[in-house]
Amino acid sequence: MFKFQPIGYVCSPYFETTQVPRGPGTQHHAEGLLEIAPEFEEGLIDIEGFSHLFVIWVFDRSEGFALIGVPPTDDRPHGVFATRSPYRPNPIGLTVVEVLGREGRKVRVRGIDMLNGTPILDIKPYMSGIPTEKLRLGWFAEAEARRTKLS
Amino acid sequence: MFKFQPIGYVCSPYFETTQVPRGPGTQHHAEGLLEIAPEFEEGLIDIEGFSHLFVIWVFDRSEGFALIGVPPTDDRPHGVFATRSPYRPNPIGLTVVEVLGREGRKVRVRGIDMLNGTPILDIKPYMSGIPTEKLRLGWFAEAEARRTKLS
Repeated sequence: MFKFQPIGYVCSPYFETTQVPRGPGTQHHAEGLLEIAPEFEEGLIDIEGFSHLFVIWVFDRSEGFALIGVPPTDDRPHGVFATRSPYRPNPIGLTVVEVLGREGRKVRVRGIDMLNGTPILDIKPYMSGIPTEKLRLGWFAEAEARRTKLS
Repeated sequence: MFKFQPIGYVCSPYFETTQVPRGPGTQHHAEGLLEIAPEFEEGLIDIEGFSHLFVIWVFDRSEGFALIGVPPTDDRPHGVFATRSPYRPNPIGLTVVEVLGREGRKVRVRGIDMLNGTPILDIKPYMSGIPTEKLRLGWFAEAEARRTKLS
């Protein structure tokens, strides 16, 4: 067992899971704050030089897990590790956000898809991404193709 | 406090931190396995359709944390949340790996930078990245520029 304590909390416009946009074609443009606890503020030095950050957080209002589930972007079931389902063996979330600025221990960001009050476990700089042309998206691409064919 | 249990372990060619390539220009091409516990194997269904995965893991051999540190890619100190230092308030690691194949509960991957036996907390599909031209890399870009000027 590993124990982790929050380094801070997300200040988000979303208070209920039903308010978080999801399903096909969803893009997250919501702005919010990463409010880091005073004792960890020093760890934020130079974070504002990066355009994007990884935020690792806890689905603290999600209960239990399901190894197989139907995601909102498909009508077929997939393994939980092939989806972003909140019902995971370890309810850990990962979001890439864009940095808008920092005032002390508050980092203003765009791309929030967490609920207000979500506990943050870690923040890391986004250093490089995999180019789109090198990505294969498995069931997600297949579901998109089926939708395009239908519409 | 949040408690997490490993869903599996990394099988890596690296047994000591000194063996893991680091510093300027490092690329990770090492191959290894993500060995998931039998009770979570079902959660891997369809994972092999994705070219890349996020692996969230624990720096289980790292002790304590430092809010400010000098990374191996620079000669100046930065806040821990602006670096990939193992000495983090919550010692959580994040690695993007390329999927080579899956045999049952073993996922063969390329891009391992973890030690052998590293506990895995979660695996997620890599759905999209930020294009390189949209990235600002703060201190990392400045350190690279200084190195280029010197060489």
